Amino acid sequence: MLAEIITIGDEILIGQIVDTNSAWMAAELNNIGVRVKQISSVSDDRQHILTALKEASKRADIILITGGLGPTKDDITKKTIAEYFGVQLVENQEALNNVTKIFARYNRPLLEVNRLQAMVPENCEVILNNNGTAPGMWFTVEGKIYISMPGVPHEMMYMMEDEVLPKLKSTLKLPVIIHKTILTVGEGESFLAERIADIEDSLPSYIKLAYLPKLGQVRLRLSGYGEDEATLKPEVDAYAAKIIERVANVVAAEEDIPIEKAILNFMTEKGLTLSIAESCTGGFISQLFTQHPGASKVFFGGVVSYSNSLKESVLNVRDETIAEFGAVSGETVTEMVEGALLNFKSDYAIAITGIAGPDGGTPEKPVGTVWIAVASVNKKVVKKLTFGNKRKQNIERSAISALNMLNTLLHDSGK
Amino acid sequence: MLAEIITIGDEILIGQIVDTNSAWMAAELNNIGVRVKQISSVSDDRQHILTALKEASKRADIILITGGLGPTKDDITKKTIAEYFGVQLVENQEALNNVTKIFARYNRPLLEVNRLQAMVPENCEVILNNNGTAPGMWFTVEGKIYISMPGVPHEMMYMMEDEVLPKLKSTLKLPVIIHKTILTVGEGESFLAERIADIEDSLPSYIKLAYLPKLGQVRLRLSGYGEDEATLKPEVDAYAAKIIERVANVVAAEEDIPIEKAILNFMTEKGLTLSIAESCTGGFISQLFTQHPGASKVFFGGVVSYSNSLKESVLNVRDETIAEFGAVSGETVTEMVEGALLNFKSDYAIAITGIAGPDGGTPEKPVGTVWIAVASVNKKVVKKLTFGNKRKQNIERSAISALNMLNTLLHDSGK
Repeated sequence: MLAEIITIGDEILIGQIVDTNSAWMAAELNNIGVRVKQISSVSDDRQHILTALKEASKRADIILITGGLGPTKDDITKKTIAEYFGVQLVENQEALNNVTKIFARYNRPLLEVNRLQAMVPENCEVILNNNGTAPGMWFTVEGKIYISMPGVPHEMMYMMEDEVLPKLKSTLKLPVIIHKTILTVGEGESFLAERIADIEDSLPSYIKLAYLPKLGQVRLRLSGYGEDEATLKPEVDAYAAKIIERVANVVAAEEDIPIEKAILNFMTEKGLTLSIAESCTGGFISQLFTQHPGASKVFFGGVVSYSNSLKESVLNVRDETIAEFGAVSGETVTEMVEGALLNFKSDYAIAITGIAGPDGGTPEKPVGTVWIAVASVNKKVVKKLTFGNKRKQNIERSAISALNMLNTLLHDSGK
Repeated sequence: MLAEIITIGDEILIGQIVDTNSAWMAAELNNIGVRVKQISSVSDDRQHILTALKEASKRADIILITGGLGPTKDDITKKTIAEYFGVQLVENQEALNNVTKIFARYNRPLLEVNRLQAMVPENCEVILNNNGTAPGMWFTVEGKIYISMPGVPHEMMYMMEDEVLPKLKSTLKLPVIIHKTILTVGEGESFLAERIADIEDSLPSYIKLAYLPKLGQVRLRLSGYGEDEATLKPEVDAYAAKIIERVANVVAAEEDIPIEKAILNFMTEKGLTLSIAESCTGGFISQLFTQHPGASKVFFGGVVSYSNSLKESVLNVRDETIAEFGAVSGETVTEMVEGALLNFKSDYAIAITGIAGPDGGTPEKPVGTVWIAVASVNKKVVKKLTFGNKRKQNIERSAISALNMLNTLLHDSGK
C-alpha cells in the first residue's frame, strides 16, 4: 500500500520552517505497513495544489495532506480540495460545536473567520480536532483515500494517532514492512560496506540494505517487504545478526535509536548515573539525554558553565588553571569533569569546553577548537578536536564526539 | 526564476531522518531571488528519480538534487542522472585527486568503491567537495540548470555557499524577492487577522501576507515580488510598519528571528545578563540561547537540576521545601529562580520544574504540570501551566512559555 504526503504552505518553500511533520508521519505509516512513495511540499497556490493532488493520486493509494487549513486568507487548501473533487463546502455541525467549545473555553468571542473553519467539502467525513479549530477531513474517492489535516504539528499528531492510523488499519488490508537498524560508531561508510559486502550480496530481492552516515556514525538499515510478518521478521533479523556479528566492534546499538539513547539504555541496565558540565555546547548534550523518557533514572543533571565564574563556583575549576591555560584547554576540561563527578556525585561525567564560533578564536586556539573529557571515578579520557567555523555544526559535532567517547568508555570499562 | 529541490533517499520516506537540507537551501535560494516552487522527497529508485527529474524540469528553471551520492550500492543518483541525460560516466581527474587526498589525510587505503566516486556523467561540470569524497555536479541542458549535491548536510552547505550560490548569481539575471517578518507573541492568528484586516486588504497583488502560528506565537510574513529592490523594499517595509504600529502591544521582534534571539538582542542592547535553572526542560532552554552567536554576552549559563540533590546543592532549594511541596511546585520553582539569581549573579533568571512525562504524574500533579518562574532582582512572575502527556511537546511548550514570560517581564520592566 503506497502513500504520498503533500505539505502545503509557502513557509516550507522559503525555508522559514523545517518540515518535521512528514518524517513523523512517514515513520508512523511505515509502522502500520504503509510505504511512503513521495513527499512533496507545494505552495499555497490553487493550481499547484490541484496538480500535486493529481500527480499523487496517480502514484499512491493514500494521499495525506497537511497545512493550509488556518482561518486566514492565505489558507486555501479546503476550497481547493473541494474544487478538485467538484463539490461544495457545507457547514459541519460537529466541527462548529468544536470551534465554539474551544472559543468558549478561552472566553473569546467566536469570529466569522472561525465559523468558516466549520465549513468542509460535502463529500468528506470530518475528523475531529481536539487540539485546534481546523477539522481534519477524510475522503474516499474512486478507491483512493485522501486525508487533510492541519499543519500545526501537535494537532496533526493527535489526529493521526487517535483517528487516522486506527481508521487506516481497520479499512485496509496492509502488507508488512520490517525495518531493522544497527547503529555503528567510528567506522566510515565505505569500510563498513567492504566488511559486509558478501552479506549484502546474499540478500534476497525483497530485503534491502541502506547506509545512513551522520557525523562519525553510520546506521545500517535492513528493510524487508512482504505479506507475512511471521516469516519475514525472522529472516530480516537473521541477516541483521550476521551483520552485527561481523562488525561487532563498532556496533553501538542493535535498534534504531540515537547514540544517547543507547547510552541511557546501557547505563539504566547497569544502574549507572551521569552528569554533564557543558560550556561550548550550552545545554545541547543535556537536552539530547533529557528528551528521552526515563532519562532521570541515569541523568542527575549538570551545569551549563558558559561563564568562567560558573566553571569556578559550580565545578571548582581553579581560577589559576583558567588564567594559565585558558578556559578552552585540556587542564580546564579535566578539572571540569572532575568537578562534575565530585559535586554531582554521578558514576560518570562528560565535560566539554570549546570555541563554537563564529567569533572568539585566536591563532593558537581557532574557532572550532574543542576539548572533551569523559570520566568515571577510575578512568578518564581527554581529547582535543578541531572543527570548522560553523557554530551549530561545531555544537552538534562536539556533542556527538562526546557521546561516542562516553559510549566507548562505558563499554571498555565493562570488559 | 523558479527552482525545485529533489531529495533522494529512502531514509526521509521512512521517517528515519528529518529533511533539514531543503529548508536551508530554500532560504539561501530565496535570499538571492530564486523562488522554490516545490520540494520533493523521492526514493532510491531509478524510475522514481527519472520521473521526478522530468516533472521538476517542466515546472522549474533550476533543479537542485541532494542525496544518493555515497559510495555504496543503494546510492544510484549519479548513474540515474547519466541515464536521464543519455550520457556515459567518465572518471574525473579533479574529483579523483580530491578523494585520494582525503584518504591520504586519514591514512586509509583508497578502496575501489571510493575510486568510483570520481566517476561523473560526461556532460557535467564537477563542483569540488572540500568536505567529503562525493563530488557535486552542475549540468546545463536545454536552458535548465541541474545541480546534484551530497545529502550530508555540511558537505551540501559548504558546496552551496562556496560554489553553487555564487555561480547561480553570476550566471542568471535574478528577480527580487523581499521578505519581512514580524514576530508576535500572545495573540491568536484569527484575532491578529481581524485587527489588521484592512491593511491586508490594501496590499497590492505583488505583496502577500502569511500567518505562521506556532505555540503561542504568530509570525506575520510579508513577501514582495518584483524587479527592483530599491522600490520594492521600501514598499514592503511601509506595509510592515503599518502592521507593527497596529499590533505593537504583541510585537516581540521586527525581523525573522525566534523569541530567544529577540530576547538576546534586547538584553545585549541593555547590557543585561541571564541565567537559567532547568529541571523538566533538561537543557533545552539553555541550548536555544546558546545556539546563537554572541549568546555569551548575555547568558552566564545555569544548571540542569534534574535530580533533587542538584536543586539543593547548586540552587540552595531547601530540602524542607521539596519535602513539603514537592519538586514540582510554586514554592520550589520560586526558590530555584532566587537561587539562580543569587548564585549565578545574573540580572534575570528563568527557573522551570515540571513533569514532562510520559510517566511520573500523580492525580494532583498529572503529567504535563509545569511551574515556571522568571525574575529580576526587583520583580518575579510565577506561573503554573498544564500541558498534555507528550514529552517532547511538553518540553518545547514549557520552553516557549518561559521565553514569552521573560520577554514580557523584560519589556514591562523597561516601562
